[in-house]
Amino acid sequence: MSESSARPAGPRPVRSPRGTTLHCANWLIEAAYRMLQNNLDPEVAENPDALVVYGGIGKAARNWRAFETLLSTLERLKPDETLLVQSGQPAGVFRTHEDAPRVLIANSNLVPRWATWEHFDRLDRAGLMMYGQMTAGSWIYIGSQGIVQGTYETFAEAGRKHYGGSLAGRWILTAGLGGMGGAQPLAASFAGATSLTVECQQSRIDFRLRSRYLDEQAADLDDALARIARYTAEGRAVSIGLLGNAAEVLPELVRRGVRPDLVTDQTSAHDLVNGYLPAGWTVERWRAAQADPALHAELRAAAAASCAEHVKAMLAFHAMGVPTVDYGNNIRQVALDQGVADAFAFPGFVPAYVRPLFCRGKGPFRWAALSGDPEDIRRTDAKLKELFPEDAHLHRWLDMAGERIAFQGLPARICWLGLGERHRAGLAFNEMVRSGELKAPIVIGRDHLDSGSVASPNRETEAMKDGSDAVSDWPLLNALLNTAGGATWVSLHHGGGVGMGYSQHSGVVIVCDGSEAADRRLARVLWNDPATGVMRHADAGYEEAQACAREQGLDLPMQAQGV
Amino acid sequence: MSESSARPAGPRPVRSPRGTTLHCANWLIEAAYRMLQNNLDPEVAENPDALVVYGGIGKAARNWRAFETLLSTLERLKPDETLLVQSGQPAGVFRTHEDAPRVLIANSNLVPRWATWEHFDRLDRAGLMMYGQMTAGSWIYIGSQGIVQGTYETFAEAGRKHYGGSLAGRWILTAGLGGMGGAQPLAASFAGATSLTVECQQSRIDFRLRSRYLDEQAADLDDALARIARYTAEGRAVSIGLLGNAAEVLPELVRRGVRPDLVTDQTSAHDLVNGYLPAGWTVERWRAAQADPALHAELRAAAAASCAEHVKAMLAFHAMGVPTVDYGNNIRQVALDQGVADAFAFPGFVPAYVRPLFCRGKGPFRWAALSGDPEDIRRTDAKLKELFPEDAHLHRWLDMAGERIAFQGLPARICWLGLGERHRAGLAFNEMVRSGELKAPIVIGRDHLDSGSVASPNRETEAMKDGSDAVSDWPLLNALLNTAGGATWVSLHHGGGVGMGYSQHSGVVIVCDGSEAADRRLARVLWNDPATGVMRHADAGYEEAQACAREQGLDLPMQAQGV
Ligand SMILES: NC(=O)c1ccc[n+]([C@@H]2O[C@H](COP(=O)([O-])OP(=O)(O)OC[C@H]3O[C@@H](n4cnc5c(N)ncnc54)[C@H](O)[C@@H]3O)[C@@H](O)[C@H]2O)c1
Ligand SMILES: NC(=O)c1ccc[n+]([C@@H]2O[C@H](COP(=O)([O-])OP(=O)(O)OC[C@H]3O[C@@H](n4cnc5c(N)ncnc54)[C@H](O)[C@@H]3O)[C@@H](O)[C@H]2O)c1
Repeated sequence: MSESSARPAGPRPVRSPRGTTLHCANWLIEAAYRMLQNNLDPEVAENPDALVVYGGIGKAARNWRAFETLLSTLERLKPDETLLVQSGQPAGVFRTHEDAPRVLIANSNLVPRWATWEHFDRLDRAGLMMYGQMTAGSWIYIGSQGIVQGTYETFAEAGRKHYGGSLAGRWILTAGLGGMGGAQPLAASFAGATSLTVECQQSRIDFRLRSRYLDEQAADLDDALARIARYTAEGRAVSIGLLGNAAEVLPELVRRGVRPDLVTDQTSAHDLVNGYLPAGWTVERWRAAQADPALHAELRAAAAASCAEHVKAMLAFHAMGVPTVDYGNNIRQVALDQGVADAFAFPGFVPAYVRPLFCRGKGPFRWAALSGDPEDIRRTDAKLKELFPEDAHLHRWLDMAGERIAFQGLPARICWLGLGERHRAGLAFNEMVRSGELKAPIVIGRDHLDSGSVASPNRETEAMKDGSDAVSDWPLLNALLNTAGGATWVSLHHGGGVGMGYSQHSGVVIVCDGSEAADRRLARVLWNDPATGVMRHADAGYEEAQACAREQGLDLPMQAQGV
Repeated sequence: MSESSARPAGPRPVRSPRGTTLHCANWLIEAAYRMLQNNLDPEVAENPDALVVYGGIGKAARNWRAFETLLSTLERLKPDETLLVQSGQPAGVFRTHEDAPRVLIANSNLVPRWATWEHFDRLDRAGLMMYGQMTAGSWIYIGSQGIVQGTYETFAEAGRKHYGGSLAGRWILTAGLGGMGGAQPLAASFAGATSLTVECQQSRIDFRLRSRYLDEQAADLDDALARIARYTAEGRAVSIGLLGNAAEVLPELVRRGVRPDLVTDQTSAHDLVNGYLPAGWTVERWRAAQADPALHAELRAAAAASCAEHVKAMLAFHAMGVPTVDYGNNIRQVALDQGVADAFAFPGFVPAYVRPLFCRGKGPFRWAALSGDPEDIRRTDAKLKELFPEDAHLHRWLDMAGERIAFQGLPARICWLGLGERHRAGLAFNEMVRSGELKAPIVIGRDHLDSGSVASPNRETEAMKDGSDAVSDWPLLNALLNTAGGATWVSLHHGGGVGMGYSQHSGVVIVCDGSEAADRRLARVLWNDPATGVMRHADAGYEEAQACAREQGLDLPMQAQGV
């Protein structure tokens, strides 16, 4: 009996093995074995005892018995077998071949008519399903580095679009220092911008000061503006926090005629009970109202009214010509519902900044060192700089991440790479494994939020040029092609990011074990995967994607005929 | 420039090439090339000019330009390339490897919240989507043989369940001789039962008499009962048609205390305007009311009231202990809406008869002779009888089908085979291709309505034992595994059979080209594909499936631990 199947099933601290001793038949299987456990490492997972990795209830396995059985099944899996995982449980082992994925995963998928939280919850309670989020159930979450990097790319793209590629001497105005919003000041600094983040809870500011995601706190608005004036003049990318209510501070800035260089927001306006402090309320009154359902209606109304004022201020900045975007917290919708008719005059961050990247197959490429040795990641960082010597933006990120991002679980790195870049990185890493320059294999994956892997009409595929926002053929084809190409594991999920009914997406992970077979698979998969994103955007009529397809020599039969 | 890309895009008669001259790089690609065209053969397709194959608007390609580009792309596809097809258009060509599928298809998939006919129609009109039905958009439709065989299997399973395996001397009462219902009399005869089918239109009866699907017409109800008495006494499986209204005939039979051996119905009760003649109405009045929208409300009310009477009669038979089933035409729901509280007292045909087959991986296995030579099918028929010498039921079908089923398009055969049988058939066919016993390769596929390939809570997965009807992880895993195993083409569709929002399903096709590589692929794919169905039903708690899994040595990790 294997080590893990002998364990009783129940909460226990989980940590991926490190080093070069294999627990499975080969490194491809070992990689799944380690990354599944790494997702539940207390340094990585939000609530490991409940198997929750991140994103509310995004889990790595359905229950503890399923988790232990996943491990014991991987321990005995043969190199030509494939394990099927259905909503977090190991459903079956089948014979395939050595060039096929070792694990195929489907999480949280429901026939559309039944694709609601109500129905999901019923199945979840009955033990029949699990919410996989994106990288939780597909075993490639790497902690908060991902959100810092995504925000950095977004800010950097804004800099390219509006300010000739440099945010030096520019400042970003935003709010919210919560779980995800807390990445904003660090990302702004990485992107070279000064920033002012308004946050209504001192505890949140303190936490971000402690972890060095935020550089300093201003005493009041005048002090904040003075600091901004100084740092922008000096071209220093310092991040400033301000205790206050965004629904009060932003209108005041408008009144004073202050002109930021970029405006956004990451308060939790999507949740009017728990996420947005109404103007004029103390945090104590807010907490009390949250705790008392009888006060929810009043709280909701007050929060919505404040969101409307907040959005009106954003609209004023927008009208001044300041680039202004919604960061996916639904605040425009709340304002629209409050009668702010032009609430959607400024765009969401995906159409504004992320889509141009997606058009070139650019998205959140990430990798982890199965050795557990941080030195392996330092070497891959150096290798990337060597591979892409001209990419100052990439170098900047790698340098700053190396300095300021603490690893969580297995050492890992993320950076956004596009079509034509990812497979070069993968092949170079594989060569480093082969030559012994790295201590053990590298596992490469990405978020499901990527160029060709997601249909999510309220976020990643909002406002597609041809109106094809809801067409989910694309992520399904992405998963099928990655399976055909020989990725190490492939996943198809529903409901990640935006909840049940609102998205379908696929994940892919591939291992650099140093073999020549891996070279061939990496060359295919890390080319094809971003290429499906370029294809999808070219098909939707984006000229940038069509140009990229031509430059990279993609074979898109309908495009060739001139659509 | 290739033959097909030189053609102007527009309606033209399409027919698959026959014989052994290849138009593509190898037989795997040639098979997709021929089967796509075969789906649009005027003998096969319902409306080839509109690219419609069957099932309302189930199409083989999005438009004529997409169709011609599909052909020209297949003509130039290399043996290690894979073509992605997105809702009927060729979206991209990517490098994979020789053991990967040559074509990967996703049709009609929409993010759940937008998975409605309204949204689909908008995209369809904008040229962005196509309805793939099941085998229309996945290029393995073979005409009406499929429905005859499916109905035969259903009746035969009823015979096994209720009458010790023989329907000799038994009679089936049903109604409806339309597009699908017209298969009932022939299927009943094949299954060894006498049958009485009530049909309100003489033209429909005439058509089925002409095509020999129906043996004879009774003059009136007394005559019909006399014939039934005679044929059942003689043990002769004769099919009898009766001109009449089911909502009048069935209640009359109940009044007379007549006792059939099986009761079902295939009037189009799902469509109360076009599908169900109200009691007391002439066909002329019905047609006039259909043509005049102002009369639709009245027609709908009258039809619904008649359906209620019809179901009450079925309930009376059910109460007498006569096996009674709904054949997927929604008549129970109509009656329930009319206040017939116990309308769902009798089951649907899937839980009653098809599910036990699915539990053993049994479902609609089909194949076509790429040579175009009917002799190739005769030889495969003979081979199957040789492979399964004990299976009298299979022999009966093959003999009768050989005699009475006319080929449409490329000669093809269907029969239901289960786990452990399908791969044996595939390997035997491949050997026949290799030895030259067959003139050209054979292509093997199945309907998406199969054991492991569909989630459709109103039909194939209605009333699953554990309540997992709507969980669509299973068909997605099926498609991923078939891709990993090396099927020749794999498809993922939404909305087949029951419409937008109500189903997700996958298709698979694999080619016997006589090679040893094909042997390996066939052994994997034709084992794994039905095995996912046994897995899915075992997971849902069906003991028959759990027993089948044990007998066949399936590796189901959670089952091994005793769920
Ligand atoms: N679409 C995306 O990819 C994406 C990415 C990041 C964040 N978001 C969205 O951004 C929002 C924030 O996410 P989070 O995880 O950081 O949430 P969170 O709830 O952890 O943090 C929200 C923060 O906003 C503060 N806040 C609330 N009301 C305020 C007010 N009136 N003035 C100033 N501060 C206020 C709270 O104190 C809290 O610290 C969410 O709506 C999230 O969905 C979306
Ligand atoms: N679930 C399945 O897999 C499955 C399989 C086969 C058929 N069906 C269902 O069965 C129904 C029939 O399918 P079809 O393609 O044959 O439809 P169709 O519309 O072509 O045929 C219906 C026939 O019923 C006759 N009819 C209508 N009202 C009648 C009445 N009151 N008395 C007697 N005859 C009457 C019509 O004249 C017509 O010939 C549909 O609802 C279909 O969805 C379901």
